[in-house]
Amino acid sequence: MGEMVKVALDAMGGDNAPGEIVKGAVEAINEKDNIYVILLGKEDAVKAELAKYTYDESRIEIVHTEDVIEMAEAPVNAIRKKKDSSIVKGMTMTKEGKADAFVSAGSTGAVLVGGTVLVGRIKGVERAPLAPLIPTAAGASLLIDCGANVDARPSHLVQFAKMGSIYMESVMGIKNPRVALVSNGAEEEKGNALVKETHPLLKECPDINFIGNIEARDIPLGTADVIVCEAFVGNAILKTYEGVGSVLIKKIKDSLMSSFRTKIGALLIKPALKQTLQDFDVDRHGGAPLLGLNGLVVKTHGNAKAVVIKNCLFQCAAFKEQKINEKIQEKINPIGE
Amino acid sequence: MGEMVKVALDAMGGDNAPGEIVKGAVEAINEKDNIYVILLGKEDAVKAELAKYTYDESRIEIVHTEDVIEMAEAPVNAIRKKKDSSIVKGMTMTKEGKADAFVSAGSTGAVLVGGTVLVGRIKGVERAPLAPLIPTAAGASLLIDCGANVDARPSHLVQFAKMGSIYMESVMGIKNPRVALVSNGAEEEKGNALVKETHPLLKECPDINFIGNIEARDIPLGTADVIVCEAFVGNAILKTYEGVGSVLIKKIKDSLMSSFRTKIGALLIKPALKQTLQDFDVDRHGGAPLLGLNGLVVKTHGNAKAVVIKNCLFQCAAFKEQKINEKIQEKINPIGE
Repeated sequence: MGEMVKVALDAMGGDNAPGEIVKGAVEAINEKDNIYVILLGKEDAVKAELAKYTYDESRIEIVHTEDVIEMAEAPVNAIRKKKDSSIVKGMTMTKEGKADAFVSAGSTGAVLVGGTVLVGRIKGVERAPLAPLIPTAAGASLLIDCGANVDARPSHLVQFAKMGSIYMESVMGIKNPRVALVSNGAEEEKGNALVKETHPLLKECPDINFIGNIEARDIPLGTADVIVCEAFVGNAILKTYEGVGSVLIKKIKDSLMSSFRTKIGALLIKPALKQTLQDFDVDRHGGAPLLGLNGLVVKTHGNAKAVVIKNCLFQCAAFKEQKINEKIQEKINPIGE
Repeated sequence: MGEMVKVALDAMGGDNAPGEIVKGAVEAINEKDNIYVILLGKEDAVKAELAKYTYDESRIEIVHTEDVIEMAEAPVNAIRKKKDSSIVKGMTMTKEGKADAFVSAGSTGAVLVGGTVLVGRIKGVERAPLAPLIPTAAGASLLIDCGANVDARPSHLVQFAKMGSIYMESVMGIKNPRVALVSNGAEEEKGNALVKETHPLLKECPDINFIGNIEARDIPLGTADVIVCEAFVGNAILKTYEGVGSVLIKKIKDSLMSSFRTKIGALLIKPALKQTLQDFDVDRHGGAPLLGLNGLVVKTHGNAKAVVIKNCLFQCAAFKEQKINEKIQEKINPIGE
């Protein structure tokens, strides 16, 4: 058991708030005793949910927030105007050290903007990347960056490679994680201008295990642990991943329901198929970390259920235990300028 | 029946050459009587394959080529040095008007380089995009550009939108095809510098049906018919598509073979599942066209079987019948400068 991690949790974010969010918080503190949760949201609604459970009351507190940032709101405006919202308050608490981490299933845009504007970057970090885990045939890889700031420079990608390596090694337990740079061919001479400039810089990095360029086709095979790319490309890969996966699974499910014969077959294969699809789901690792900030920010998807929220809280505990930010600080800005 | 289309077919390209290539040629001319095929490759080997079939001998000719461009060769060098290869000779014949189209399952790099260097672009076309069809829940969409020339300019993307629209309307029979620009959010203000510059240009285009930005997540749903993007991003989307699809299908097949119970289930669902997976396969439309050249160039995948080659030849027939290049010429360079 490490020292206590204090997590500010957005009780108003996502489709299942506050019910599943509160449930996830209770499950997390009941399962691990080094987690302290600050639930941010409408006090009455949160209290009503908490009343359904038994738990150690000394490890959950409620901080009332009046405003709610909606999914459709323009992020910059929302962050500026809704000071008394769960997102702004949770991030401010993280900035001020009143919380170690902030977790939200709410507006991605607001979380991304708030991360940089409210929590702030670690000194020396040029850009804070959003780094979701994506499922592979071998487990999971970190796709860094899928954030809102596009058109990165080579120096940004080098920092992403370093931060991603630290995360995969310390939080996911992968020794000497393999780092690859997304390109349109594995050969060193392939790539766009950004990739061609970045490749030699990564090659020279002494503190990462750079294995070269990777074609997007090989990402799902699990050929690399840290997949480095500029955010526009990362977004395209991530969203294609999600889109193809869900369309294909839907088509297969439809075909299973197409006749009496297939329905019987479906009953027989259901448990095995369910297991397979679960393997191809990375929610068990929590949400997507926004790295390089003064505190951890975790963005999980809008339809997150209690179990995902619980896993996000465990992720925050591992992040603190493993002193990720100290390690990032050391790699990015070793003399602490 | 339209006028005869003359297709130069690379008999040496791909994993199944020359057997499946020759078989596909025979099947095509036996099925449609407006196709004439010039088989390029080692004469003895091609003859030996042809001897297996009965067909109208007045519609297949062999042009002997001595050199073979291997998959691993550097494309520019290969094109320059191997003048007597099926790819160089087929493309030269297309350039000279001795063939209307060239089809190859060989080296993608050599075909892409050869298209621009040997066949040449239509006057006014700034860049020749590679535009594969990708499967969607609704059928198929054209992903334009997935070629080797990255870091496009806005004017390139506008031409891609026009050429892609013509192709989808005339070859695929989609009336007023919906054109969308790949971005990291559907909102107009989203995007990288290239997308932000291109969006207003597409909006102003009178001759395309521009429906706005598209997130990669929505591509597999079939939300748009022509998906416009710069080649590096197109490559990432295409390869992610292929990679996720094949890993997921492999995982599902493995789970079906995991126990006696699932094996029985698998037998029952097999026909329906096979149909579903076939629907999610666009080989029935032929290969990826390289648009905007003086003649059609079609690149199909390395493991293409006879049926795919046959479909590529039908695609060439439709391309000629529909006078695609005349239409491109008219839209891109209306005064014929």
